[in-house]
This record gives sequence, C-alpha cells and structure tokens, in this order.
Amino acid sequence: MDHQYITLAHGNGGRLMRELIEEIFARHLGNPDLNTHADAASLAQINGEIMMTTDGFSVQPLEFPGGNIGSLAVHGTINDLAVAGAKPLYLSLNAFIEEGLEIALLERIISSLAKAASQAGVNVVAGDTKVLRRGEGGGLYLATTGIGVKCISNLSMDRIHLGDHILVSGPIGDHGTAVMLAREQFGLRGDLQSDANSVLSLTRALETLDGLHFMRDPTRGGLASVLHEVHQFSGLGIRVQQHRIPVRDPVNAVCEMLGYDPLQLACEGRVVAFVDPASSEQALSLWQNTEDGVDAAIIGSVDSQQRVILETELGGERILEELEDEPLPRIC
Amino acid sequence: MDHQYITLAHGNGGRLMRELIEEIFARHLGNPDLNTHADAASLAQINGEIMMTTDGFSVQPLEFPGGNIGSLAVHGTINDLAVAGAKPLYLSLNAFIEEGLEIALLERIISSLAKAASQAGVNVVAGDTKVLRRGEGGGLYLATTGIGVKCISNLSMDRIHLGDHILVSGPIGDHGTAVMLAREQFGLRGDLQSDANSVLSLTRALETLDGLHFMRDPTRGGLASVLHEVHQFSGLGIRVQQHRIPVRDPVNAVCEMLGYDPLQLACEGRVVAFVDPASSEQALSLWQNTEDGVDAAIIGSVDSQQRVILETELGGERILEELEDEPLPRIC
Repeated sequence: MDHQYITLAHGNGGRLMRELIEEIFARHLGNPDLNTHADAASLAQINGEIMMTTDGFSVQPLEFPGGNIGSLAVHGTINDLAVAGAKPLYLSLNAFIEEGLEIALLERIISSLAKAASQAGVNVVAGDTKVLRRGEGGGLYLATTGIGVKCISNLSMDRIHLGDHILVSGPIGDHGTAVMLAREQFGLRGDLQSDANSVLSLTRALETLDGLHFMRDPTRGGLASVLHEVHQFSGLGIRVQQHRIPVRDPVNAVCEMLGYDPLQLACEGRVVAFVDPASSEQALSLWQNTEDGVDAAIIGSVDSQQRVILETELGGERILEELEDEPLPRIC
Repeated sequence: MDHQYITLAHGNGGRLMRELIEEIFARHLGNPDLNTHADAASLAQINGEIMMTTDGFSVQPLEFPGGNIGSLAVHGTINDLAVAGAKPLYLSLNAFIEEGLEIALLERIISSLAKAASQAGVNVVAGDTKVLRRGEGGGLYLATTGIGVKCISNLSMDRIHLGDHILVSGPIGDHGTAVMLAREQFGLRGDLQSDANSVLSLTRALETLDGLHFMRDPTRGGLASVLHEVHQFSGLGIRVQQHRIPVRDPVNAVCEMLGYDPLQLACEGRVVAFVDPASSEQALSLWQNTEDGVDAAIIGSVDSQQRVILETELGGERILEELEDEPLPRIC
C-alpha cells in the first residue's frame, strides 16, 4: 500500500479501493470461495437446515487484551450460530472505516479476523468496505453475517420448563472488564484478558445431551439480560445463587470500585444453558471436560415465581434488575 | 416508544433496546422467518446453488429524492444477487445508529426498507442494532447481507469475449446527481430522482438469452469503474461511444457546472451487460420491453486495444480514466 492512513479515496470504487481490498482484505481472507471480482459468492451445497445470523461490532478500543474488533466480529457471529445449535460455514464481512485510520492497525485487525475464521473452519465469502469522513466514524465498525447448518435440533426458548437448571460455562464479565481497563479512562490497570473466543467446543460438547432445552451467549447486558429475556418470554421465574456464579477476583474488584454489576457485563466466549434437572450434572461434567468449560457451574433454576431473583451470599435475596441505563457504550 | 431521539441506552442489551427492536424493526419487518428471540434464523430448504453477497450503506443525506438509506440497503444487496444471476430470498440487516437520531426518521427508513424487501419478495430474517455515541456516527449506517438461489448459469467476468457488445439498461448518474442535489451544499436545486430500484425485472428479462456473458450494476465509481474492472481483469480493451450512453439533461448540466464526469457517478438501479454480438439486439429489445429498460442502449464493445476508450461526440477519442480522488463521499 502506498498510504499509511485511510483516505476517502479508499472508498470511492476506483484504484485505491481496489488496492485496499486486494492488499489487505483479500490477501488475509483469501479462500477458494472468495472472488473479489464477483458480485455474489457461490456456496457449496448445504445438506440440512440452513441457519443465518448477523451481528455488528463497534468496540472501543479496537484492540484490547485477548482480542480485537476483528477476532470479535468472527467470534460474536459464529457464537450466535453455535448456541442456536448450528455449525458455522460461511461469513460475510462489512467494514465501515473512518478516514485517518492507520492502515497497519487495519491490517492487524483483518489478520486476526482471518485467523479466527480459519480456526473456526469458516470462510469469509463476501465483503464490502465503506470509508467514512473523519469525525463520522469511530475508527472502524464491522458487521458479519454467518451461515451455518443445524446440528442440534429442538433448541428454543419455549422449550424451557419449570425446574430446568441453569448453567454457565465459565466466569462472567471478563470481556466487559477487560475492555473497560483497556480504555484507561478510569486510571485502572490489570492483566485481565477478555474471554472473547469461539464457543463451538462448548456447544459441540452438549450435542447429544438429552434434556438440553436452550443455549445463549451472554453478550451485551450480560447474564442478567439473558435471564430477563427468558423470564419475559416464558413468564417463568428465574432464581440464581450468587455464590455459584463464577466471577474472577479482578472483575469483582473493578465492579466494586466503579459501581458495576458483573451480571450486567458482556461476555464474548461463554454459554448459558437451560437443561432438564435430570441431565444437568451430565451437562456440567461434559463442559468441565472441555478446555473452555473447566470453570462451568450450575447457577440456579427456573421456578414459578415470575421474577428474576438473585440469592445473595449473605443468605438474603433481591430482584435482579434489568439494565436501563447504558453503563458501557461500545463494549462489543 | 417513550423517546423522540435515540439514546445510548437503546443499544445496551436491556429494556430500551428490546423496545426499539420490537416497536420499530420487528413491527415493520415482521415475517414468519424473523424471530427476535432466537440467536439465528432457520431458512427454508433452498433447492439449487446458494449465492451470498453483502453491502454497506452510508449515504448522506439519509433521505433523498427517489429513496432513502433503507430502501437503498435492500436494492443495493438484492441487485448484487440479481446481476450474479440469482433470485434473492433472504436478507440480514445491521444498523449502526448514532445517539441523537430522530426516532421518527429511523421509522420512516425502516418502513421503506420493509416495503422494498416485500416488493422484491425477500424476508429480513436476522438483524442487529448498535448505538454509536454522538459524534462517532453519521446518523445511520446500514449493512445488508443477501442470500439467493442461482437462476442464470455461466455468468462471469472471464466469459467476456473480444467483440462482445456492452449494454446499459438506462440513463446513468441519476443517483449520484440526486444525492448531490439533496445535500444542498452546492446551492443547486432540481427535481431529479435517484434511479435507486430493484433491477430484478431487468436481469429476469435476460434469463433465457443465449450469449449473455456478464452483468454488473454500476454503483460507486459509476460505469467507468465497471469498464475498468473488466479491462483489468480480462486484459481486453473497451471502446464506448459517448453519444450512445444515455444521460439525462439535468445530470449533464450538474456535471458541467461542478466538473464531474457522469460516467463516474453512481447508479443504483441500472445494469451493464456484456453480450455476444449475435444476441445484443435481442437483449436490447428484451430490456426495452420492460418498464425499467425503456431507455436501454448498446453503448460500445470489447476490442483488442488494451485500453478503456471513450469516443467523444465530436468524433475524437480519449482514454477514460479510472477514478483516483473521491469526488462524492457517502454516495451509497
């Protein structure tokens, strides 16, 4: 590339745009299904039920301990397919790039994105870039759409039953806290890494489990938003025990200092599962036998009380509130 | 909605985000395949070759004569499928919304988007919204990914042959000019409408034509970029006759005043086709018999001269330059 920074001309449909696409995007993402000269990609035959999902990414800063917006844009979308019971196959990628972005930074991000896609076994087959004028973007926004094929049937929110046990695959709030620390606006430092990762090994581990009713990855709004959405959709109550919910010490420490609730902080590599009580111990052990699920826990159950209740460590209980204000814009 | 303007809390994963999605997005886009409580949508069986494409949209202003960013986000993506020979079936939608955007404007845009999708027979099956802090967005950016099924085989840039005739389906530069006028920054006014529209009727008209080699919709960079990309990919020369290229009078007038070349201005509802010379008259008449192709024309041909040449109205000729600078940021 002749340039060190993105200019408006990198978005105009002419020579510089072609060079940007060829030298940054196509070079890192290259695969037999990606043809930058075609208007649409042709996908190989998909045998089975096709699943589709999409996600946008505006995390700030663009790079954070444990990942960057590029790897996150892959993990976020393939995780939505994974928790819906699908194996991810293809991705499309949109990049909105702000004039002035350093091209070396863009290249690190697209290189991470390519690595994350490759590790998950998915090909980026379609893409588009737009350049935004200085002051009309936040450096870089990405959107990814994923196509997969269903592997686990009968997963849906309306299969959640009274008595179901609720599992979480690992400590919560790592992503939200790591991104906060990376912003440095609070004057805090730490070596906490984001949990941003593919959850495919976790969802695959439960593939043949009887009694698996529903899975979701708790991102924006954290575990609390997942519990509230289930409660509102089903009309059932949720009761979780605080001492069973895995939270790392630095996450607790930062939350106490800044007044956040770890249950409302985004994760990007965890799964919440609703499982028949007869199968929950088996689910727990299947997860604990995977590398990403060693800290998995059964954290509560579905009851008939029509509220989302948190039993505190001191033996009391409180209603777990749904998020109202925005504590952390641009967390994912 | 309780609010008149978008706030950061509309993006946080909590109650206000849920209300925004239900009351604006799901209400207008509602269809049996869109389930706002699922992480991924299940698509009906697709019999045939599956095609995938994606496009981002950052047009400014968000509303312009003949369309808005919502209808454009549908037309742009389904047109990429159409010119690749596919029938569009499904769309995903990403919205990056800037804090402070008027909710009534967002609703008009999503309503237009829903209408354009419905007219093209496609369902929006997956979506995501992110809210950007004031000053980190341009009001609204959209990205759409389209899935379709191939109906016309054997379309690709490498099928373009020496001698092929080049057709355009209608006047060029309307979209670019209409958006420019809508910005009012030039102190010009006019009643020119953008050509933004589905090109499905045009691509369908050629579905059974022998000798159809390649189609593309000239968007960013205009007709000139399409001709240059074909030239660079194939190594063949391109020769077009200026007097045959349909351009509306107001487009010519604005271009003369402001120093633009209509051949470099974006269209959003036109098709350029490369056709065997034995079939080009038939292709022309097939297009002229459709409502959207009455002004179609054969504008030139593929030759062996290894340049992109424009024969001027005065009988001379000049090399048609590829776009270098950005004449019009945020045109689509």
